[in-house]
Amino acid sequence: MELQNYCGTSRIAGCSFSVYPMTDRFKEIILEALEIVDTSKVWMETDDVTTLVRGRIPHVFDVTSAIFLAAAKDGDHVVFNGTYSIGCPGDSTGDVYMAEDGIKLNLLITAGIKLETASKFSLYPLGGGNYMDTIYSQIENMRKRGITVSKSHYSTRLDGNAIDVLEGLEHVFTETEISGSSHTVMTVTMSANSPSAKGVIK
Amino acid sequence: MELQNYCGTSRIAGCSFSVYPMTDRFKEIILEALEIVDTSKVWMETDDVTTLVRGRIPHVFDVTSAIFLAAAKDGDHVVFNGTYSIGCPGDSTGDVYMAEDGIKLNLLITAGIKLETASKFSLYPLGGGNYMDTIYSQIENMRKRGITVSKSHYSTRLDGNAIDVLEGLEHVFTETEISGSSHTVMTVTMSANSPSAKGVIK
Repeated sequence: MELQNYCGTSRIAGCSFSVYPMTDRFKEIILEALEIVDTSKVWMETDDVTTLVRGRIPHVFDVTSAIFLAAAKDGDHVVFNGTYSIGCPGDSTGDVYMAEDGIKLNLLITAGIKLETASKFSLYPLGGGNYMDTIYSQIENMRKRGITVSKSHYSTRLDGNAIDVLEGLEHVFTETEISGSSHTVMTVTMSANSPSAKGVIK
Repeated sequence: MELQNYCGTSRIAGCSFSVYPMTDRFKEIILEALEIVDTSKVWMETDDVTTLVRGRIPHVFDVTSAIFLAAAKDGDHVVFNGTYSIGCPGDSTGDVYMAEDGIKLNLLITAGIKLETASKFSLYPLGGGNYMDTIYSQIENMRKRGITVSKSHYSTRLDGNAIDVLEGLEHVFTETEISGSSHTVMTVTMSANSPSAKGVIK
């Protein structure tokens, strides 16, 4: 679809994401999170619907994870919603950031944050590749790290500590890319500090 | 991916969605919206992360549109995020709802609501089909109805009245299904009453 094929020619990764704090102070929380997080290794643009980050996979996950954790750390009910993408043919905005090294800049911010989360993710390998074994082994890795993995309609549910889940998702995405999928999309919804009990609400 | 292939054997459509009111009263707003909307023609299940609806395409769009509009109608900043899907092979939960007629139950609720919105959507026809011409003609239809269509990274942006945009998205999804895509996924983020100015925030 031409209109959405407006993305990278290199193997630049990206994420279109939003953070939703369910509180009257939503603007302050978002602005403070954006202030704390070091975004110097990614191309970034915010509009009234989403924020876009583009760069190398580790930095795209580092920045999106840190912004979500910074927004949720004080206990407000905050939801992260993001679409990660790599291999969409088109423009080249932010390609200069592919020269950055692999050292994540926000590990010190996120390392101390323990946050139980409930997430759903879906993986769409749009460009073929031998990704099934890759995904199964990554799901197994998540289970070994204490993440509860369960089925849902249209997605896979993950319950666990935010940092563990986000690292798991980064591995799934990275390994799918390495396995040869020419265009990979992964959607993630992650909820922290929800007042609802876990599971189905009767 | 086995874990997310937990969906219908028939041509039952579905949506995994959430509504995010950015206010301290988020729970009341969501519960009131769920109360107002008639969901008797869809299978529905809510958990702490998302709400799932399954049924015929018109009712899936009718219910998700009505819940969003009911939540946003009083002026709070509310965001809708949904993944619409049809053709994912697997289980058959809710197949009984495929016997419902096509008459939407919530048009009276939504008809009176005028709401300027900014949205982004992406369409992933995962099962082939001749959908490109279909999409272009649907995008053209949206433009004719006064919706502003523009490119973004990883998505297409739509600015316009909520009901017009939601109807446009239903047409895109329906026509892609009719065109022969065996598995279609469409993700939608729709924002109403945002305090941010339209477009890129400097």
